[in-house]
Amino acid sequence: MENIRVIIWGFGAMGSGMARMLLKKKGVEICGVCDMHPDRVGRSLFDLCGVEKGDRQDVILQSDIARVLQGHPADIALLATDSFTDKAFPKIQYLLEEKLNVISTAEEMAFPLASEPELTAKLDEIAKANGVTVLGTGINPGLIMDLLVVALTGACIDVEEIEAERINSLSPFGPAVMEEQGVGLTPSEFAQGVKDKTLAGHVGFNESVGMISRAIGWKLSEPVRQSMEPIVSSVYRKTQYAEVQPGNIAGSSMKGSGFVDGKEKIRMIHPQQIEPQLEGTETGDYIRIKGTPDISMAIKPEIPGGIGTIAMCVNMIPHVINSHPGLKTMIDLPVPRAIMGDMRDLICSP
Amino acid sequence: MENIRVIIWGFGAMGSGMARMLLKKKGVEICGVCDMHPDRVGRSLFDLCGVEKGDRQDVILQSDIARVLQGHPADIALLATDSFTDKAFPKIQYLLEEKLNVISTAEEMAFPLASEPELTAKLDEIAKANGVTVLGTGINPGLIMDLLVVALTGACIDVEEIEAERINSLSPFGPAVMEEQGVGLTPSEFAQGVKDKTLAGHVGFNESVGMISRAIGWKLSEPVRQSMEPIVSSVYRKTQYAEVQPGNIAGSSMKGSGFVDGKEKIRMIHPQQIEPQLEGTETGDYIRIKGTPDISMAIKPEIPGGIGTIAMCVNMIPHVINSHPGLKTMIDLPVPRAIMGDMRDLICSP
Repeated sequence: MENIRVIIWGFGAMGSGMARMLLKKKGVEICGVCDMHPDRVGRSLFDLCGVEKGDRQDVILQSDIARVLQGHPADIALLATDSFTDKAFPKIQYLLEEKLNVISTAEEMAFPLASEPELTAKLDEIAKANGVTVLGTGINPGLIMDLLVVALTGACIDVEEIEAERINSLSPFGPAVMEEQGVGLTPSEFAQGVKDKTLAGHVGFNESVGMISRAIGWKLSEPVRQSMEPIVSSVYRKTQYAEVQPGNIAGSSMKGSGFVDGKEKIRMIHPQQIEPQLEGTETGDYIRIKGTPDISMAIKPEIPGGIGTIAMCVNMIPHVINSHPGLKTMIDLPVPRAIMGDMRDLICSP
Repeated sequence: MENIRVIIWGFGAMGSGMARMLLKKKGVEICGVCDMHPDRVGRSLFDLCGVEKGDRQDVILQSDIARVLQGHPADIALLATDSFTDKAFPKIQYLLEEKLNVISTAEEMAFPLASEPELTAKLDEIAKANGVTVLGTGINPGLIMDLLVVALTGACIDVEEIEAERINSLSPFGPAVMEEQGVGLTPSEFAQGVKDKTLAGHVGFNESVGMISRAIGWKLSEPVRQSMEPIVSSVYRKTQYAEVQPGNIAGSSMKGSGFVDGKEKIRMIHPQQIEPQLEGTETGDYIRIKGTPDISMAIKPEIPGGIGTIAMCVNMIPHVINSHPGLKTMIDLPVPRAIMGDMRDLICSP
């Protein structure tokens, strides 16, 4: 059996991280990379990753996806360009129509039905018509505040309430995340950003609440309620990409609630900030299920977002290739797993 | 769509617990129960469960499986009679040949390849020939020390070592478990039991280590190494079914190790005892992954074994019905989940 052939579209922090991960794995190869950034177009994947090419064929980054695919038949594309389904849609459609399976990092794609029911139906239809599969995944949404919650309810006879809390550090992230979260702003700038909706904050509560409720059979009686509060720093904080003066914003604390028959049944709590340890905040991932039995899980420190998203997307490749055609979410496929052997060993013969 | 119809074979603590759980769920009904116990044969399922029959058809426990199945076409059988694959094999074979899907509580069936490769191949063949599916599951093996470990590695780029620890209380369990674990014995009786192999202890390390290594692509270079040490109580302990004098055995501490290329890569630690709190032992489930990233998970207190096994078996019903025919393990199917809605909503149309 030949290597599994992967296309990467979007070579930012996530896409390039997936490339570095894939270059270390057996039974898989990167056969093309699409990226628009002028500093990267025309350069070798191996140079950009700082990895010896060895006897592998070179891969030159190109800005035109049609040229990337030309002469490079691939099994799957990893799409790491967008957060929202509507933005990712034309790219996913293009890839599916080229008969490629697709894994998207777009947060909304983790459970697109929550925000884009029409595009969801279209994507499912296009994927089926072309005999391929599309999945959205990542660390969160994708695992921490949804799939892991669902898996733990598997040990429950009954579930009454669910709370998922992710307290994480934004310190490793770059300028885009700092901007989305309002890091470094004054309190009034932050308030204005929330009002204007220019601060995206965490994208994923709709998806995580949607995925959990769908999985366990709760019907949401109203849209997910969300709030976003500033985390005001009382000390000076600094990272490579952000600086926060005392009295200004170190991050944001988001909450989300899913209601069933008017009762709050699913609660999401997600405070994110740079340098949380400076004011004694311990990071971690927590799941609390009230039911039969009660379950209280903690992962300390939190599973890091960047590495986790990279790993989830790459590790789901075999499951997506094996899947029935269509749009899938993490609750439809077997559990993710690290791939320490030959990736081809995980491919089921049809 | 008609209700999902379930047969239960074995009406001990697990089988009767599954019955009670099923009687509370929507879209599913119990259409037959097979059990040998003279106190139960001939009695009504509803009486035995202490549940109002309402307008449901009565179900009388019968000792002959052929008579249970007669005139009661079912979708799936829950088999809660054995711990070992060779003992469960003829029963599973019978059910598969009657074109029933099967979920078995036998610990070895969670990953039967580990101990019974020939029977595994036979079961897979029989299931496929009859167009049905067989799965072994439970809380452990089935979730805590294997599937949950696998799912967490999904967030890892690389894994170097895995440790799973389950510190649990045996207090809720009955006489069979007390005997298997040596609870109440003197230290010399316990030593003799380990030597004679009359103390089964925990059955599942072969299966959990086998499942993890298969899932992530590690090839075990030797059989799983296991040890069983007594937990000697320094205080008096008592439960409904066991009594331990100071100096005698409150339970057993088992360890298991999986080796890859001669190196210990997977470690299982599983001390079980009655009344652990009397000597300050905190119960819990722990998973520690050394890799990229490191992951340290704790569930405190532990997910209880009895309730957890009951829930896992019932909650996997839709996934087993939806599955391709054959022998499956938990790593082949979508994640387990609580079923709070109508069970039929989880059945995929073929």
